[in-house]
Amino acid sequence: MMVELKINSRHGSFGGTVGFYQYQSHVCHCPMRFSVYEPPQMANQSVPVVYFLSGLTCTEENFMAKSGAQRYAAELGLCLVVPDTSPRDRGITDENKHWTFGSGAGFYMDATESPWSDHYQMYRFVVDELPQVIQEHFSVLNNSQSIMGHSMGGHGALVLGLRNPDQYRAISALAPIANPIASEWTQEAFRLYLGDDQTKWQDYDASCVVQKFVDDRPILIDQGLADQFLSELRPEAFDSACQSVGRSLTLRRHEGYDHGYYFISSFIGEHLKFHAEQLKH
Amino acid sequence: MMVELKINSRHGSFGGTVGFYQYQSHVCHCPMRFSVYEPPQMANQSVPVVYFLSGLTCTEENFMAKSGAQRYAAELGLCLVVPDTSPRDRGITDENKHWTFGSGAGFYMDATESPWSDHYQMYRFVVDELPQVIQEHFSVLNNSQSIMGHSMGGHGALVLGLRNPDQYRAISALAPIANPIASEWTQEAFRLYLGDDQTKWQDYDASCVVQKFVDDRPILIDQGLADQFLSELRPEAFDSACQSVGRSLTLRRHEGYDHGYYFISSFIGEHLKFHAEQLKH
Repeated sequence: MMVELKINSRHGSFGGTVGFYQYQSHVCHCPMRFSVYEPPQMANQSVPVVYFLSGLTCTEENFMAKSGAQRYAAELGLCLVVPDTSPRDRGITDENKHWTFGSGAGFYMDATESPWSDHYQMYRFVVDELPQVIQEHFSVLNNSQSIMGHSMGGHGALVLGLRNPDQYRAISALAPIANPIASEWTQEAFRLYLGDDQTKWQDYDASCVVQKFVDDRPILIDQGLADQFLSELRPEAFDSACQSVGRSLTLRRHEGYDHGYYFISSFIGEHLKFHAEQLKH
Repeated sequence: MMVELKINSRHGSFGGTVGFYQYQSHVCHCPMRFSVYEPPQMANQSVPVVYFLSGLTCTEENFMAKSGAQRYAAELGLCLVVPDTSPRDRGITDENKHWTFGSGAGFYMDATESPWSDHYQMYRFVVDELPQVIQEHFSVLNNSQSIMGHSMGGHGALVLGLRNPDQYRAISALAPIANPIASEWTQEAFRLYLGDDQTKWQDYDASCVVQKFVDDRPILIDQGLADQFLSELRPEAFDSACQSVGRSLTLRRHEGYDHGYYFISSFIGEHLKFHAEQLKH
């Protein structure tokens, strides 16, 4: 059954439209929000879709407001979809206590531990449910999707992308949390959502996952060398894991760039061109 | 005497640097903040400067974070300077009472009425003082400046630009408050800053000023037709005033665009190209 979309706002942008939406999610059992950029080409044809997963504390708005991605998406004819980073206002104790778990910190995983498991089903939300909603409501191609993200969303893009080779034609990340089981940022969220058995955590660690799911889709990662959180991100661990299984990875390091949107906006154009090439052949 | 700049933060962006600064302003008698985008060309040469004046409620950050202007400025070799929109934290009664006057609403004018006149000297700050500070601290050409702005900042760009033909080589505006003495938004600020004699208000009304300062510099204005504030902006009044004195104006109206940064980011590239052409010949 087709879900009903609520339009929160829509704004003209580079000949297309930025829109903010929500609907009642079946997998998260609550309203879930997302944003969509429809490039001008979508007025006349179906186009490929790039999913962008955002970082800790972000909503579905930050990327649309600050990345400058619309210009490139309009040139390339790509639809952009940006999910919110967690369920919101679920009445869970400690839901809003800390920026590294709960609201704004869903980590793109399916929680197995109560009470988080009632709503925090972000993996299934992003991989299974949201693409169906997008397919039903927007003029997108049904076999031409890719995934990218930043920081926590870079973690999400790598894990979801690698685990679903038939769904995503390309994977890229900006300053991803590339080895979260070894990062201090992520310990509390992983423990609360998945429990104390750390072997289960490996299913959501890109540096573990990349050794289990081997295929030949290209991966692009950009990392700023002035990133204040470099020790939490551990791109070198992901690089080593790729090398250990002979997986091709383009990992570029950039002097002078930090962790924020001035970094993202500087490289988002090259990422979208990378995705467009993979999506169009 | 060279003022001392405090660096609040700096961020790599499109091969150059976004920086946030403040210094003790002599004309405003308080700390004043601004941001600068230095394109990569500034590492080796002096470049022209475009001043961008922001709208009501904005600080020196909004434009840098949301406009996407850095990409174009990097391509064109333009330095961007964005002043804050008012003095802050001056202890004036009602300073933070309403978004249309006081903090975030300096209207780029020199207040003559107490207590505002002690600090709200935004015209002299933007026209006289800040350019000297920029000249002293950054590699910019001293005879190649232009001015643009959005909404209240579009008002500022038109008024400051028109009244100073020797200083600014080009003028442009996005959704400017083009006839503020006839706008409801502006009545309280103009009365508080300039007093009840409305003949004095005309020096800060672009539709009046353009009839007194006639020259042949080009003016570019873009206006969204889905702008929720169109009746406050009155571009048609400025258009008529230009026609009455035979002044050339390019006023473009765009279906589907509203008043926000999705509109600004869609057209900022064309504005910067317009400025670059005027600044480089």
